[in-house]
This record gives sequence, C-alpha cells and structure tokens, in this order.
Amino acid sequence: MQHFKTLNDPIYGFVEIPEGLISDLIEHPYYQRLRRVAQLGMAQYVYTGATHSRFAHTLGALHLMQQAVAILKRKSISISEEETEAVCVAILLHDLGHSPFSHSLEHTLLKMEHEIVSLALMEELNQQFGGKLSLAISIFKNEYPKKFLHQLVSGQLDMDRLDYLNRDSYYTGVSDGKVGSERIIKMLNVIDNELVVEFKGIYSIEKFLIARRLMYWQVYLHKAVVCASQMLCKIIERARWLSKKKQERWKNLSDNLVFFIENEVLESDLNKNVLEKFAALDDSDILAALKSFAQHQDKVIALLSEGLLKRKLLKIEIQDNQFKSDFIKTTRLHIMQRLDITSEDVDFLVFGGNQTNKAYDASKQQILILLNDDKVKPISEWREHNIQPKEVKKYFFCWPKL
Amino acid sequence: MQHFKTLNDPIYGFVEIPEGLISDLIEHPYYQRLRRVAQLGMAQYVYTGATHSRFAHTLGALHLMQQAVAILKRKSISISEEETEAVCVAILLHDLGHSPFSHSLEHTLLKMEHEIVSLALMEELNQQFGGKLSLAISIFKNEYPKKFLHQLVSGQLDMDRLDYLNRDSYYTGVSDGKVGSERIIKMLNVIDNELVVEFKGIYSIEKFLIARRLMYWQVYLHKAVVCASQMLCKIIERARWLSKKKQERWKNLSDNLVFFIENEVLESDLNKNVLEKFAALDDSDILAALKSFAQHQDKVIALLSEGLLKRKLLKIEIQDNQFKSDFIKTTRLHIMQRLDITSEDVDFLVFGGNQTNKAYDASKQQILILLNDDKVKPISEWREHNIQPKEVKKYFFCWPKL
Amino acid sequence: MQHFKTLNDPIYGFVEIPEGLISDLIEHPYYQRLRRVAQLGMAQYVYTGATHSRFAHTLGALHLMQQAVAILKRKSISISEEETEAVCVAILLHDLGHSPFSHSLEHTLLKMEHEIVSLALMEELNQQFGGKLSLAISIFKNEYPKKFLHQLVSGQLDMDRLDYLNRDSYYTGVSDGKVGSERIIKMLNVIDNELVVEFKGIYSIEKFLIARRLMYWQVYLHKAVVCASQMLCKIIERARWLSKKKQERWKNLSDNLVFFIENEVLESDLNKNVLEKFAALDDSDILAALKSFAQHQDKVIALLSEGLLKRKLLKIEIQDNQFKSDFIKTTRLHIMQRLDITSEDVDFLVFGGNQTNKAYDASKQQILILLNDDKVKPISEWREHNIQPKEVKKYFFCWPKL
Amino acid sequence: MQHFKTLNDPIYGFVEIPEGLISDLIEHPYYQRLRRVAQLGMAQYVYTGATHSRFAHTLGALHLMQQAVAILKRKSISISEEETEAVCVAILLHDLGHSPFSHSLEHTLLKMEHEIVSLALMEELNQQFGGKLSLAISIFKNEYPKKFLHQLVSGQLDMDRLDYLNRDSYYTGVSDGKVGSERIIKMLNVIDNELVVEFKGIYSIEKFLIARRLMYWQVYLHKAVVCASQMLCKIIERARWLSKKKQERWKNLSDNLVFFIENEVLESDLNKNVLEKFAALDDSDILAALKSFAQHQDKVIALLSEGLLKRKLLKIEIQDNQFKSDFIKTTRLHIMQRLDITSEDVDFLVFGGNQTNKAYDASKQQILILLNDDKVKPISEWREHNIQPKEVKKYFFCWPKL
Repeated sequence: MQHFKTLNDPIYGFVEIPEGLISDLIEHPYYQRLRRVAQLGMAQYVYTGATHSRFAHTLGALHLMQQAVAILKRKSISISEEETEAVCVAILLHDLGHSPFSHSLEHTLLKMEHEIVSLALMEELNQQFGGKLSLAISIFKNEYPKKFLHQLVSGQLDMDRLDYLNRDSYYTGVSDGKVGSERIIKMLNVIDNELVVEFKGIYSIEKFLIARRLMYWQVYLHKAVVCASQMLCKIIERARWLSKKKQERWKNLSDNLVFFIENEVLESDLNKNVLEKFAALDDSDILAALKSFAQHQDKVIALLSEGLLKRKLLKIEIQDNQFKSDFIKTTRLHIMQRLDITSEDVDFLVFGGNQTNKAYDASKQQILILLNDDKVKPISEWREHNIQPKEVKKYFFCWPKL
Repeated sequence: MQHFKTLNDPIYGFVEIPEGLISDLIEHPYYQRLRRVAQLGMAQYVYTGATHSRFAHTLGALHLMQQAVAILKRKSISISEEETEAVCVAILLHDLGHSPFSHSLEHTLLKMEHEIVSLALMEELNQQFGGKLSLAISIFKNEYPKKFLHQLVSGQLDMDRLDYLNRDSYYTGVSDGKVGSERIIKMLNVIDNELVVEFKGIYSIEKFLIARRLMYWQVYLHKAVVCASQMLCKIIERARWLSKKKQERWKNLSDNLVFFIENEVLESDLNKNVLEKFAALDDSDILAALKSFAQHQDKVIALLSEGLLKRKLLKIEIQDNQFKSDFIKTTRLHIMQRLDITSEDVDFLVFGGNQTNKAYDASKQQILILLNDDKVKPISEWREHNIQPKEVKKYFFCWPKL
Repeated sequence: MQHFKTLNDPIYGFVEIPEGLISDLIEHPYYQRLRRVAQLGMAQYVYTGATHSRFAHTLGALHLMQQAVAILKRKSISISEEETEAVCVAILLHDLGHSPFSHSLEHTLLKMEHEIVSLALMEELNQQFGGKLSLAISIFKNEYPKKFLHQLVSGQLDMDRLDYLNRDSYYTGVSDGKVGSERIIKMLNVIDNELVVEFKGIYSIEKFLIARRLMYWQVYLHKAVVCASQMLCKIIERARWLSKKKQERWKNLSDNLVFFIENEVLESDLNKNVLEKFAALDDSDILAALKSFAQHQDKVIALLSEGLLKRKLLKIEIQDNQFKSDFIKTTRLHIMQRLDITSEDVDFLVFGGNQTNKAYDASKQQILILLNDDKVKPISEWREHNIQPKEVKKYFFCWPKL
Repeated sequence: MQHFKTLNDPIYGFVEIPEGLISDLIEHPYYQRLRRVAQLGMAQYVYTGATHSRFAHTLGALHLMQQAVAILKRKSISISEEETEAVCVAILLHDLGHSPFSHSLEHTLLKMEHEIVSLALMEELNQQFGGKLSLAISIFKNEYPKKFLHQLVSGQLDMDRLDYLNRDSYYTGVSDGKVGSERIIKMLNVIDNELVVEFKGIYSIEKFLIARRLMYWQVYLHKAVVCASQMLCKIIERARWLSKKKQERWKNLSDNLVFFIENEVLESDLNKNVLEKFAALDDSDILAALKSFAQHQDKVIALLSEGLLKRKLLKIEIQDNQFKSDFIKTTRLHIMQRLDITSEDVDFLVFGGNQTNKAYDASKQQILILLNDDKVKPISEWREHNIQPKEVKKYFFCWPKL
C-alpha cells in the first residue's frame, strides 16, 4: 500500500503527495525555491490577490495528473507504476526553470525559454537521484513512445493549463478563467497513443479555449501588467548596461543576481555551478535589488525601480495598429529634454512592442474529439464551436508620465 | 457625485476606492509597502496557498467598512461625510505598523504591538497630509465620542476580523473560518453609541466566534506555523546577539534591516527618521537576510536560516501541560554535544513557550444583542449559545532534528 | 426612510423587498403560484438538482434590477422613485404568465407566448391595485419614452437573463453558465435613452454571450430535456384529442386543467375568469394528471404519462440534417404494429422537430459598447470577439424504445 | 472493469452510478418517486431556494459512501465487493419511506418513523430483485457483524448527515451548515469494527456538530417552517376527522391519498398492496389536495389549506418556557367566537407543542477519536471542544391572525 502526505490546497481541498521520489523531490531546495516565485509575476500590481506561487501551481498540476492517470487507467489504458510516477515527476518539475517573477522576467534574466532551464535542472536532479528521473525526462522531452504522457504534461489540454487557469482565476478573482477541469479530465481518453476527448466533453473544451483567451486579455496581457513586466525587464537590462559601462559596485545585490547581470548565460553554459546560482534566485533577490537601484545615481534605473516599488508605473497605450513613428519620436525627444538624458538612455524609458494571443492554433497540434463510433476528428471541424483560430496582435507603447 | 476607482478582489469581486484622501493614502509608499508583507507570515509553510498580503486584507476591510457605514446610515444612525471618511482611513491604515511577515516577527523586530507603530505612522502621515487624518486618529485611539466608530475599527466585531477570517479562510482553504460577513454587517445597529447586533443575527455571531477559534487552532497557532515563526524570531535575536558580540559586517543585508538589528527601538524612538527606515522594510529584506545568514560562519544562525529557506523546520511538540525540566535539560545537553555549541548558543535552538486562545473574552468588551423590544443584552447571557469563555493554553517545545 | 423585508437567496445571499406595492404583489396569489412552477421544466430529469422555481428566479431578477438602477443613478442617469418602482414591478411580474413547467408547456397549454399571458395578468392586477401598475405596464410594453428601462426588463442584457444564467448554472451544476452579473451591471450606462456597456466590460459581455449559448446546448436544448418536454406536450395534445373524440370523464384532474384541455384559449379570451383559472394551475396539476393518465385505458396517453413518471423516456436522436423520410416511415410502421395503434395515434409517439440556437442576433437589437471617447459602437464590430452570429439548427426525432 | 453512468450534481460535480443492481434500483419507480418529494418539506416557504428533492440527497449520500469506502479500503480495512455494493444500496434507499414533504408529514400521514417504511420497501424490493438486497438490509438493520458499515449509513457521522448538511446549506443559502465532508471522510478509520476519526480531524468534527446545531435552529426548526409543517399536519388530521364524521366525497383527491386519510396504517399493515399505494404518493398529491380542500365547505380545512397555498401562515410564537394556560384559553375562545367554530374545531387552528435540539448526545453512541498512539477516546473528553451536550427545548404556539 502506498503512503501519502496530504497538503492543503484552497482549490482542490487536498493534494496527495506519494511518499518516495515525489516527496523527496518536493523537499529538494530546487523545488522549495518555487515558494518564493510569484506565479503571475507583475500581475499582482493589478490583481492584488494574485500573490500565489509556482510552488502551489505545480502541486496543483500534480494533483490533476494523478486524477487524469486514474481516469485513463479505469478506461483500460495501460499505464505502469513507473510511468505514473514519471509523468507525475515531469509535471511537478516542469516549471523549475522559471526566473523570479515567472514570465515577467522570462527571456531577460536568461535569454531562453524557461523549459530549457527546467530540463537542465531536471537533468542535474537526475544525477543527484541516481538516474531515477530518466523516464520523466524522456516524457518531458517527448521522446517516450506513449505520446499521450507528454501531452498530459505539455499539450493543448495539459494538466499545466487546467491548473493555472483555475488557480489564476481563483487568485485574481477573474471568474471567466474558471474551467471544469474535473469534467474535462473525466472525458479524456487515448486513441493510437494520442490524448483525445470524448464527444460529450466538447462544450467543456470550447469553454476551456474561451476561458484561456479571456484570461490572456484580462490578466496575462492586461496593459498595466505588460507595463510593469516591461519595466522590470528594462531594469535588468539597464543594470547590465551599467555594469558594462563602468566598474559597477552593486550595493546589497545578492552575488547570484550579480552573476546573471554581469554574464550573458547561454544554453551551453547551464552547468551545475550556474544552475546552483540560478536555483538560489527568487523574487526576494529582485525586490532587494529594486530597493538598491531606487537609490542609484543613474536616473534611469532609479526612476524605473522606484516606479515599481511605489507603483508609479509608466504610461502605456495599447492599440490594434503600430504606433506612428512621429509620435514615438516626439515622445522620446520630450523625455530626453525633461529628464536631461541621452538618446541611448531613453531607450529604457520610452519603448514599444507587441503581444499576440491565439487561444487555439489549429496549425499546431489539434485537440482531437472521440466520436461515439470510435472515430476521431479534430475540434476545428465543428462549425458551431467557437475556437477562433484568428491570431490577435496588439501593439503597446510606454513612456514616463512627467 | 463622488468618483471611485475599482479594484478587483477575489473575495468581494470589487472594492471601490473613493478618489481623494483615501485614494492618495493608498498610493503612498507607506501603504504600497503592505503589498510585500505576508498577511499570515510563516503560515504559508503549512498552507501553501496562503501568500496573501496585508495590502489585500486592509483593502478588504475598507470595503466592509463602506458597507457597514451604509447599513448604519440606512438605519438612521447619524454618520457625517467626514466621519465616514475618517473611519475608512482608520481601518485602511490600522495595519501600517506590521513588521515583515506580520505577526511572525511582531514583538521581535520592534518590541511593541504593531498598533503602536501604525499609530506613529498615521501621525507622520497626518503631518504630510496637512492634518487631514486627525479625526481618523481620534477614532483609532478611541478618543472620539461616537464610540461605535472605534468599535468598527477595533472591537469584538470589527471589520478587521470580518475580513481576515474570510480572507485567511479563502487563501488557506480552511473553510471553517468562513464567516457570513454580509449577514453580520446587515444586522449591525447602534444603541447609546455602542455597536450592537440585532437579535436575529445571533446564530451568525455564534458562528463567527467559533470560526475565529477554529482558525486559531488550525492556522494561526498550527504547530508548524508556530515553529517556523519562532525560528524566524530566533534568527533575528541571534543576529542581534552576534552584532553585540563582535563587530559584525553583514553581507547583503539592507541598511534598514541592519538598523533594527543593531538598535533596540523603543516607542519613544519612533521619529520620522526611524519610521522611514521601518517603512522601507518588507518580507524581501528578511528573505535576503536569510540567504546571507545561511552562509554565515555562525552555526546557529546558519542552521536556522537554512532551515527556513529549505523548509527543514525544527521538531516541535505541543501539549496541554508544561514540559518536564528533565526532558528539557536532556535535550539541551544532547544538542550542545551534537553541534558542539555552548549553553548560551543552545537557547536559540532548543526552546519552549506557550500559546493561548480565547475566542471570546466576556470580561473585556462584550458583544451586545439588540432584542426585539429595543433592550440590549450581552451575548454571554444566552445559555444555548456556545461562546466558550474558557481560555485554552498550550505549551510548545522546539529542538533540531539531528 | 424606506423599509425592507429581507429574503434569503442562495445566490445573492439576501434579496431586499421594499415594503408597499412590491411587497403586496409578492403576497398576491398570482405571484405565490410561481413557487410551484419549475423554472426549468423537464430539465430536472437530466439535472436532478435543477428544481428551482420561477418564484426564486423573479425575486433574483428583482434584486439585480435594484442594483442596476442604483448603479445608473450613481452615474447621474435620471430615474425617479416612481420609475424605480415601476421597472422593479415589471421585472418581478414578467414571468407571471408561465404555464406549469415553464417553457416545457409554453405554446401548448396556451397557444401563445408566456409574455402575452404575463401582460394580461399584470393588467388584471392593475385593476385590483387601482392603477398602480400602469407605469410598469407601459415599460413592459416598451411604450415608455425612457427605452432603457424596457431594455433592463427585456433586451440583450436584461436582468432576466443575468439572473437565469447564474441561477440555472447554480442549480444544474453546469458551471459554464455562470456570468459576472455584478461586473456587467457595474458597466451599464445610458446614452440617448439606450442601455450601453462601458468598454472595459467587453470581455464580460463576450463571456455572457458564450455562457448563454453553452447553456442552451447543455441544458435548455439537452436532448433528454427536449424529449421529456415533447412528451409532456404530446400528453396534453393527446388529452385534447381524447376529449374531442369522446365524452371523456377525467378522473382526478383539476377543473382548471380540464378547462384548458377542453378549450383552446385565444389571446382575446384572456378575461378575468380565464385568468383566474390559469392562475390556479401549477406543476402539481400536471403531475396529478400524469398519474391519472398513466392509468388511462388509452394506450398512447398511458405510455407517455407512465414514461414521465418513471423516467422511461422515448428514444431521441439529434442531428444536423433532417431525418430521412424512409427512416421516419419505417419507424412509424414498426411502432404501429408493435403497439397495435393507428396512423393517427402514432403521431403522438413518433415525431420530430427542430431547435435553433442563436446566442446573439445582431440583426435584432444590438449590444452597444460605450467607448472611452463617449462614442457608441455595436459589439459585432469587434473582430476579436466571438459573438457568433451564426444560427445553429438541429433536428430531433423521438420514438418509443420497445 | 466496472461501468458507470455519470449524473450531474451541483455540489459534487458528478455522481457515479455503477451499472447493475444500483443502477436498476435507481430506475425503479419506488426510487424515481423521490424526485417529487421535497427534501426540506415546508422549509421552501422560508428559504425559497430550498426546493431540492430526496432524490438528489440520496444520490449525494451514495456518492459520499463511495468515497468513504474507497478511503477505508486504502487504509487496509477489509470491505468486499459485496459489502461495498450493499452499503451503497443501504444509503441509497434509506429515505425511501419518506412521506410527501419528508419530515413535515412524518408521523402524521403514517404514524411511524420513516425508517420503518424504508425498511418495508427495501424488503419488498428484495423480493422483486430475488434476494439481492439481503446484505444491504442486514447492514441497514445493524445486524451485520461489521458494525462500521451500519455506522456509515446511520450514526453520528453517517453519509446521510454529511450530504444533507451540505446540500441543505447549498439550497437554503445558510452557509453555516457547510461541512468539510471531504476532509471528514479522509479522516475516517475503523478500530474494532467501529468507525473512528483520526485525531487531526477533531476540528472538522467540532465544526460538523456546530453546523448541524445551527442548521436545526436556522432551518429545520425555524419558526415559520415549524408553523407551515404543523399546518400541513393539521390539514391531514382535519381531513381524517371529516372523513370519520360524515361520508365524505373528496373531490380531486388521488385514491392513494384518500386511502391513507381514511385508514390508520400500522407497521403490521405494510403489505405489498399498502406499500404500492404509499409509493404512488408524492408532493403533488398533497398540493392537489390543498387546492381541493381550499374550496371545501369546512371552514377549518379551507382556512388552513388556503393559508398554505397563498402563504398566509398562522401566527407562531416560540419561547423557552411553556405558554401560560390563560393565554391559550383566551386565544382559543377568541378564535372560536371570531370564526364561529366549536371547541373541537379550534384544536386544529390553535395549538402548541415543543421542539428539542441536541446536536450531540454523548449518552447514545459516541464519536470516537483515534489518537496518534492508536488508542481511541470519545470526543466528549476534550475540554476545549464545544460539543454542547445540553439539550435545548423550545415551545411554540400557533393561532390564526384575524
């Protein structure tokens, strides 16, 4: 009989942690660090309740994975004990490589997808745990023949999404993101090694795709969230710029953070030493840095850092078309004059970019519906379901209110 | 017509912020700091979802205060516009003086109740806002003739408690703490300047008192929460001890934290300069310090700090009676030998204490019930209601697992 | 100061009933009857929890109307006390004319829309209440100049829909129907006497339209619900057929039900006498009739009635295209032979039809969005919002399983 | 592999129905009848949302039973497949013997506990199902050696209570009744064939006992609910009185209801014929009767019946002590004169009684707590837990408002 530890979770009531490998991984400092990484990064500036951590999210995803595996087994899908543990490990650790403040600093602190760092950390853990994570890694990399196991970890209907939509909805209060995860999981099945959804779950899938799209616009790509995230990235970039310019002596910055400011780390650099430094970083390193930067003599980094600490955000505009170059030019000049800064400096304070949102991309992997006659059809073939393949792109532009 | 800003809140949906003084206070850095102070301190080690901030709590209490004032006005209780604003300011700012990690560090970082610091900060803000907080301060100090306004801020049924029970319940997932705050507020009334509850709300009051008691045992005084909080206090105390012993050069600690480690601040010391230092501190200063301490050469502070970062807590036992002195002595000796530390050192690693829980103390201010004949009777006079005046005391004892 | 009675409601907590006209109307037997009319008719055969009444729904809609009026007044829209009461009366009474089991028997027991009967009953009440309902009736008929008042009662975003989506979602457990009614109401405004929604509510509106569409397919047009509703209609029609055929002596049917079986009532027949008979009918008359019919010697009515009482529904198929005439013919013949019934009889047991669902019909009244520059634009003009103007039509076909 | 049908439930999301015996029993007319029996009888007059049925409740209890059995099995408690099915059947059918409107008519329509009728119906079903219910009946009667199985069906912590507290709370909106049923079930265990609760569930048990007590006073024994239930009983009693007096020709009453009015049925009379009549009765027979009685020439039955249909309840007073005989006498005389009725008549309109509420009776079966050292202790031994053994008795008195 397997033993479990039980954790409290406000969404599922309880999450059961099987003793052994999974429990040991949770106690590992690489994983405990996720307690101090905000799931939604800067979104807490807009949704004050959204202070939840990557730790809580990944435990939630583990919980859903246990449910999904149990449902599939009951439908006579063959999943061994080893595979069960491995797919649970894969979902548990899939976010290990997130930077502080998650997506807000992704691609900036390290110039790569967080999944690459997650994989490097999983491989390091595999060393430490004597090879016990090999199967999990194989599933994570989609190299394992039972493709549906990878799809449960990372796919159109993975346990990651099912947890984060509900959790982000719960903590932000944006009820549009709530998804019938229990119902969707009950409708999962496997045909030809592919994850499919039984026909009567089709409305729940439609709802899920819509919920995801609405969460993108209302939370993840909310204009103030975009603005605060951009400010955070510009702060790190400015710190790098300063450290290149002059022999900078950072005050009160953690050595680990300084390392990632002073060094551009490539995928090939992710050795044990670098990973240990990364795994020591969390939101508190960034917050401590902001406090230090806010006192810095460099006007640019001080303005941005104080802005985040005191919630004086830059002004941001969002529109469907690109911003006019005239408008950009005038704004830059205006800020340069007002702040008495150079054209190189103003890049960190006046800047634009774009965001795209495509809830369901039929050109990539499709959601497959299992018909009552055991045939399978991609969801995009139903005329009456709104899966909106249109990609929506929006342009933003930020500058200081003076 | 008054204008409002609307904030999202997962519990109430929306919180309305009147523009003007209240909105300006919320934008003040003293208040923005509360975003970075965990409402439940160390409780997030047990309840992983409980990462909510004092910022969200005090905005929630403001929301309930607006409701309570509206209900009382509808019952023809005279409350002027000025009093409405003042009582809202008082509830908004009542937690301004919380240390990082709230109650976990209260009485340790500063050797005083947080309300004393809140009051000092309110008085400083009153300077900055040209006297506009005077009425709020008078209500907060219970010097204002309309006593019920103070009772709404701080009393047996104040808006603070109504918010924190629901909020802490929502974020921990301990549903026992959920309270019918809307119902209780609807039943409030005022007789002879005292807050009273209309008779048909008596079951809701009973439920409220029970919810509070259950939250104490299940969350606020949960043994692992007590243990982690004690560890945090011992870390600060050990840092003070070290700084007294030798000329300590703290690495990566913020100057503001160092100030409170090196100086014992008394109530009379709370001048503008000290308050500014205090208002610059939040959870991230403590977390950065833990990381620094975990690398310290002092075994004691390193063990405790690493313990908190990696969630390797001390062992804790809780019981109804005092721990036997024999057991204490043996444990101390054992740890001294195993860690090769002195008797002075071991005080920081092997220690005990007690916790008491008295959900309703009839000897202090009573909850008054308004009968249908307009008479008032304290709730303790109903035989069939469980208001449990018994105080329950429990003893705890902590030591390292080795 | 206005006085209120407070009713409990599981969705909103409390509903406040202003004393006076509204309170008196609620106590009137025409309104009390709605306690015994199931909001979702036959849907409780599929969603066993969905036993809620028209009484609870209309009180809920009243609650939302009070909120909407308060919000609009705060935005300086002029609404007098008389208009407030009238629009509340209109929403309270808008479902007065529902037959037993609501939509399941609509157009069958009386061959007209329920709104026509509601209006007739409101006019009768206006007599009884000395003309106090005249303004409410004018709003209900959309004859009052302030068009937005009618739109709050009956329009794309009326309080009826906002309540029923949430209530039907709560009682069925189909969470897809949940709608942010508080949020939508907060975003309402009035421009040129038309109800509009402020721009930042656009996601909530999209969510609302989707929720409504999903509820249609999952609940209101669920195949077993359609089947049971059709069976109920066929029972009434068969009873009429029998009563025409022979001098039928119904056993245990209420006189009032017999009247509506034996007489085809036209709009012009809705005099006080007929309305009193109608207002005496509720679900229990139908259930009592089913028990009687189940014992009837006529095979057809007995089979259908026993089927409903014991939940032995007809078989139903639903498809996108019309059923083939061959299939229909064969099925009819098969049933005629097996049950030894005539071709006239089989019409009541083997039958088809269709259902359409168009969540948002831009060709009728549009939902208007209020832009930040105070201009107004219909929602259908946003390319990225899914308002799906496509009408979806489905065909059903029912026959006995033998 | 066992197959399941899935039902929607607003509280648990889904209830799984194993195909075979359980599924067949659910389709049986005796069970389908529960769709038309209101779980809370007359409580819907006060809590307008509380229209849920015994059908939904017993399916919910079945769901919890499946969870409880799974948890116990995981803790290595031996429960065979047969025992699992039997204990599920027992909980599913435990309310089969409820009269229309459940407790409101219990002891009146049949002068016995509803469990006696449930047992008789189970035995009749056992005949129809060829003895397949024998084990379930043995558990229901507490004759089976594994006592804990009976305790799951009927005991201090049975699945009946866990479902009805949550369900009644959900449908009334009285949140005080909500209980952590999932948590309590997770804490169940078995020692010496007795159901016990693991120590860390002690707060949940306390909460459960309090929730039950609060639901009694706020819902089950709410004064208007008591009044309406008493009126219903008096109507049936008056009908009996009338039918004894004179050769009554009831108009539009169902034969089955007439049978139970004209015959006093004893336990020994519960033969197949009588049970079939009983199983044909539901709320609609009573409602149809009320409509008929409201037109009756007997003033007493007409007044009471019209009162229920139009919600003109008698006046009711509740107090801690017995009502003074003077007051009773005066009221009776007053009503006799005003209505011109006899002293025998007035007994049906002016009457009193009492209600008691004892949430936890330690003198009967105790709730046993499993300590960490595997010892067992009754919950009443904890001084700090409020289990309130005091019985509270209240007296009521009803009379017509004239």
